[in-house]
Amino acid sequence: MIEISKVKEEYLNHINKMDSYNEALSLIFWDLRTGAPKKGVDRRSDVIGILSSEVFNMSTSEEMASYLTQLLNEETFNELDDITKASLLESKKNYDRNKKVPAKEYQEYVVLSTKAESVWEEAKEKSDFSLLQPYLEKLVAFNKKFIEYWRYEGNKYNTLLDMYEPGITVEKLDEVFAKLKERIVPLVQNIADSSVQPRANELLVPFPKDKQRDFSLEILKELSYDFDAGRLDETVHPFAIGLNPGDVRVTTKYDEEDFRTAVFGTIHECGHALYEQNISKELQGTGLCTGTSMGIHESQSLFYENFVGRHENFWKRHYESLQRYAGGKFDQISLEEFYLAINESKPSLIRIEADELTYSLHIMIRYELEKALFNDELEVEDLPKAWNEKYQSYLGITPPNDAKGVLQDVHWSGGSFGYFPSYALGYMYAAQFKQAMLKDLPNYDELLAKGDLEPVKDWLTEKVHQHGKLKKPLEILKDVTGEELNADYLIKYLEDKYNKIYQLT
Amino acid sequence: MIEISKVKEEYLNHINKMDSYNEALSLIFWDLRTGAPKKGVDRRSDVIGILSSEVFNMSTSEEMASYLTQLLNEETFNELDDITKASLLESKKNYDRNKKVPAKEYQEYVVLSTKAESVWEEAKEKSDFSLLQPYLEKLVAFNKKFIEYWRYEGNKYNTLLDMYEPGITVEKLDEVFAKLKERIVPLVQNIADSSVQPRANELLVPFPKDKQRDFSLEILKELSYDFDAGRLDETVHPFAIGLNPGDVRVTTKYDEEDFRTAVFGTIHECGHALYEQNISKELQGTGLCTGTSMGIHESQSLFYENFVGRHENFWKRHYESLQRYAGGKFDQISLEEFYLAINESKPSLIRIEADELTYSLHIMIRYELEKALFNDELEVEDLPKAWNEKYQSYLGITPPNDAKGVLQDVHWSGGSFGYFPSYALGYMYAAQFKQAMLKDLPNYDELLAKGDLEPVKDWLTEKVHQHGKLKKPLEILKDVTGEELNADYLIKYLEDKYNKIYQLT
Repeated sequence: MIEISKVKEEYLNHINKMDSYNEALSLIFWDLRTGAPKKGVDRRSDVIGILSSEVFNMSTSEEMASYLTQLLNEETFNELDDITKASLLESKKNYDRNKKVPAKEYQEYVVLSTKAESVWEEAKEKSDFSLLQPYLEKLVAFNKKFIEYWRYEGNKYNTLLDMYEPGITVEKLDEVFAKLKERIVPLVQNIADSSVQPRANELLVPFPKDKQRDFSLEILKELSYDFDAGRLDETVHPFAIGLNPGDVRVTTKYDEEDFRTAVFGTIHECGHALYEQNISKELQGTGLCTGTSMGIHESQSLFYENFVGRHENFWKRHYESLQRYAGGKFDQISLEEFYLAINESKPSLIRIEADELTYSLHIMIRYELEKALFNDELEVEDLPKAWNEKYQSYLGITPPNDAKGVLQDVHWSGGSFGYFPSYALGYMYAAQFKQAMLKDLPNYDELLAKGDLEPVKDWLTEKVHQHGKLKKPLEILKDVTGEELNADYLIKYLEDKYNKIYQLT
Repeated sequence: MIEISKVKEEYLNHINKMDSYNEALSLIFWDLRTGAPKKGVDRRSDVIGILSSEVFNMSTSEEMASYLTQLLNEETFNELDDITKASLLESKKNYDRNKKVPAKEYQEYVVLSTKAESVWEEAKEKSDFSLLQPYLEKLVAFNKKFIEYWRYEGNKYNTLLDMYEPGITVEKLDEVFAKLKERIVPLVQNIADSSVQPRANELLVPFPKDKQRDFSLEILKELSYDFDAGRLDETVHPFAIGLNPGDVRVTTKYDEEDFRTAVFGTIHECGHALYEQNISKELQGTGLCTGTSMGIHESQSLFYENFVGRHENFWKRHYESLQRYAGGKFDQISLEEFYLAINESKPSLIRIEADELTYSLHIMIRYELEKALFNDELEVEDLPKAWNEKYQSYLGITPPNDAKGVLQDVHWSGGSFGYFPSYALGYMYAAQFKQAMLKDLPNYDELLAKGDLEPVKDWLTEKVHQHGKLKKPLEILKDVTGEELNADYLIKYLEDKYNKIYQLT
């Protein structure tokens, strides 16, 4: 056993080193987006390249292979503590994934996707899919080869899903998405036909950046964001980034013509940040001190954005303050009108501007297209046509051009296939968590009205945050809710809320 | 030769990697001082430890040993380009230095000096030298052993000087310091006896931080600081830091009761920053892309602080602007009075608050004490007494306690012996550079009056900045001025300036 504990210690040092490099990389990433001088960027890119390769090399090194061999066999594995076990399994997964693709091919793929991202920018600007098409074809072909290297069970697309949401399969997604579609599409239609129409345009009033910032800070405090373990900065695209649980930063974007960008953006990123701030420090340096999956991460940001930030009681408490920061510009809009306006729902072309009701439909469209691509049922060249048909079928609208259609998202040009479903999973998880939370916090609505959000954060910390990557996404879901993935809770939430707002029943 | 070019390439990759790690470390350092959340600091310290050891290990690794052996022999070395040659010599120096101290001893020393720094804080607060004394004794003993490991020529203290200012010896310092002392001590006495006394107290008026910041930004622009390759932030202790030539950041401290802290601090740090911004990009990733020595670095900051920032013509141009930013609070002080006030000289106890005339005396005192310690002519326990006697002898004042005496500086508790002389060298170098500059820019004074500082920066770039560590400090001095180290220029500058200000001749 002395031998094993020594190997274990060496393994943990190795992982700790990888985590340290990743923390340095995260800081560089944050810095580049928050004010690094532009002339230093070229050299900084070299630094990123060197540190990243180092992390990649450590994940596939002979040392790593030896640790895995020595610790992942039956006799030794069972003697280990849970954290080391989970860490090893994660390392093994990365090792296999990174080793199975020939280094040269992977290198080509990285170069290709970097190039494709910049081509995408041009293609989007010119609304010309043909520019991106040859790159997308190659990226899809690469990913098809990778799927063969990595193996698959059931549907080939499962292997891609597994990168972002381990445990989720085409079979499950088909089932939940079918349900969602069946109930949301008619609801969207009913809303379009409703005589009630919120006057969201009235929200578009000039709102100075510094006042929006002050309000954002006030909200962050109330949401239990810990400023001793974070900070708020301004960026073109908002994000949250965890360097370690004691340093989780959020950024937001201020649109002086539309305060919603900053306010709901900040609340959304705060949800991500609370997750990372409240991961157990025991997991530091083990490779597990981060969110367990894209979907669970998104469930936390969406929980706060929608179940807190778009809740009537939240605004009962904060609307006056918002009115003050806006310098009286909302004085003619009643709280009720305001609440309706921020919850307006209507079919739209752009995913990132979609409301919480129609958002999932945008995701389903992308999911179906990706699934078809990787099952040889759709060619890249036919993507624009397929995209437009699906928008007509799901949302009743057709993009006027590819910039507002198939070219709108960066994901595919960066080689990220299988990522989109996580967004919709985040909605479903969040609704399931909310349902479970109500059993422990039946006075949830009152807490919001009082501004007492500590119990909400504490509940999420106990059930979700603290575990980091120690638990798999579906394990968390099961432990917290007692159920598997289930679309019913999201459907019920959306139907209740939107039927009421649009007076549909 | 194919073999050599391959080894050379591998060596340069190795050095490039070390430089990249150092860049990441510099960013972490900057971030920790400009707003990193406090709860993340513990983990960040681990990250620093891991990255630093990695750099240390790379500097003494078997690969490094093999590169040095293969490239530093007569046949191959002469075939190499100048940059690779200088890089190798620098690596060899670090290799020898780092290898000669047994790893265990070095580790103990690092732990000791870290501990001693925190003991120093307490000792200074309590003004109790006896708390620090046992630590200082051990630190001195360690350094004495290191000197034996590293070997020495002539005086033992030379080995310590060499760490900060290669080429400078006790013999040279004794000579120039004797001259300086001979001329400055009587000048200081004459000033004390002068009937002219600037009214520096009148400068102590409330001056809002944001106005000081706006003025600082205006000045930085005029000094040719490139904001596309840098940024200005606020910190408790001002500093400049070069991540790469395209990213050199400055910080300043705003004292709302005394604008001089920020203004002269910013100008000082700008001098450091201009050095780092204008190093040739060819040197990136070679280990040479930084200032060549502490003394040359200080010569650049002092050049700007004193020869620009305390020059009459600089204020002819900027005083009105300063008055505006101060909101009229200096309207009763004429430009002449202002110029006298910012150039007030009088003996004081604290080095970092000293004026440009008396500053060198503070350094000489420290130099003489360090030299005595390492030549067994002084015991640590006798430091306070020796300190106080020297202050009386050089400056005519005696510290009322050790906090304002021997305990004022952090350097010794951090194990930095041999560092202080660099500050005084910076003054002498700067005066020598100024003399040489006047041959090429005889209209120097006019340039300042016009605010045309590009030619000054361009001259310093051509002569000093661009070379980074490619040239040794004394090599630069000789190439630029045609002379060796010479105290005469500093003496002449100080005598001319202060005789005039205090109407002594």
